[in-house]
Amino acid sequence: MRPLKRSELLHLVLVHYPVLNRKGEVIASAFTNLDLHDLARLTRTYAMPACYIVTPLADQRALMKELIDHWCEGAGRELHPNRREALMRLRIADAIASVREEIEAQFGKAPRIWATSARRCHGTLACGEARHMLARSDGPHLLLLGTGWGLAPSVMEAADAVLEPIAGLDGYNHLSVRCAAAIMVDRLLSEDGSQ
Amino acid sequence: MRPLKRSELLHLVLVHYPVLNRKGEVIASAFTNLDLHDLARLTRTYAMPACYIVTPLADQRALMKELIDHWCEGAGRELHPNRREALMRLRIADAIASVREEIEAQFGKAPRIWATSARRCHGTLACGEARHMLARSDGPHLLLLGTGWGLAPSVMEAADAVLEPIAGLDGYNHLSVRCAAAIMVDRLLSEDGSQ
Repeated sequence: MRPLKRSELLHLVLVHYPVLNRKGEVIASAFTNLDLHDLARLTRTYAMPACYIVTPLADQRALMKELIDHWCEGAGRELHPNRREALMRLRIADAIASVREEIEAQFGKAPRIWATSARRCHGTLACGEARHMLARSDGPHLLLLGTGWGLAPSVMEAADAVLEPIAGLDGYNHLSVRCAAAIMVDRLLSEDGSQ
Repeated sequence: MRPLKRSELLHLVLVHYPVLNRKGEVIASAFTNLDLHDLARLTRTYAMPACYIVTPLADQRALMKELIDHWCEGAGRELHPNRREALMRLRIADAIASVREEIEAQFGKAPRIWATSARRCHGTLACGEARHMLARSDGPHLLLLGTGWGLAPSVMEAADAVLEPIAGLDGYNHLSVRCAAAIMVDRLLSEDGSQ
């Protein structure tokens, strides 16, 4: 079996629960349609196998499935085949634990779990170091992205590492999850000479 | 006068006209609310002075102004001061030429204009090279981002350079303008050791 490429080991996980709201309470956030499209296109462009969308809310999962089916099987399929190619990489899951189990079953080993945060905290893993770890690894990785006001502390604590936040140039650091995911993935996987 | 930093020279310009539609026709596209938020937050995070939103459609400009005012002056101001800090950097313009004139009046010299494209073409400027040019420059730069199916050929031809597209890992290259802008800006301005 040929060794897997770096990009084949990395899976995005967009988490809607447990995340924080603006008051710091743990909630299940509602999904945003553009997140699905943007992350699917990012996943496909950087040749990652899948992006998991996690929510425990059954009605949200049903609505997401309908939207994805529109592009993968319905009218959107003919209109916009590029979009289908991207959205086919989305997977819907009810919990982070389910994603972990699915990936473990698929790869025959438990994934290493990287959480992300906009907040600086102790012992974070620098992006450059994570990039090297991925290059030396032969096991699956999950990159957890929080919606709302970010991943709940329980998720951060259970992760194998928290990636260093994307540093703004003068302290302000409030990117959308779409932009933060794009920058993070580019730093981890880009093959450009500029990296 | 202190020399300007790299980030103080770079201005984003989100272009809604002239851009292409899926048939390759030149159109004015409708703006997307999330583009305004995502690009404003990116602009603020990377300490760029401004992001211009260009459309010749007066009703679209009026609607954008209303949305921006909500966050900068209205109810959103109290609820979400971080967002105000970002959206204050948005400027509405009727044409790329107006942005060029405004920047020239402000800096006392004409901006260098960089177009972007997802399509590979001859003579593109590599991102790493653009990053060095910016570091050595003391003049303003505009980074033009196309909506719809990308900037019209007339815009590409009038630009001083077209930046190399963000290379996907296996040929697919259909990022959203939000994700593409984030990656491009990170490659041009990031001060992280990973770059």
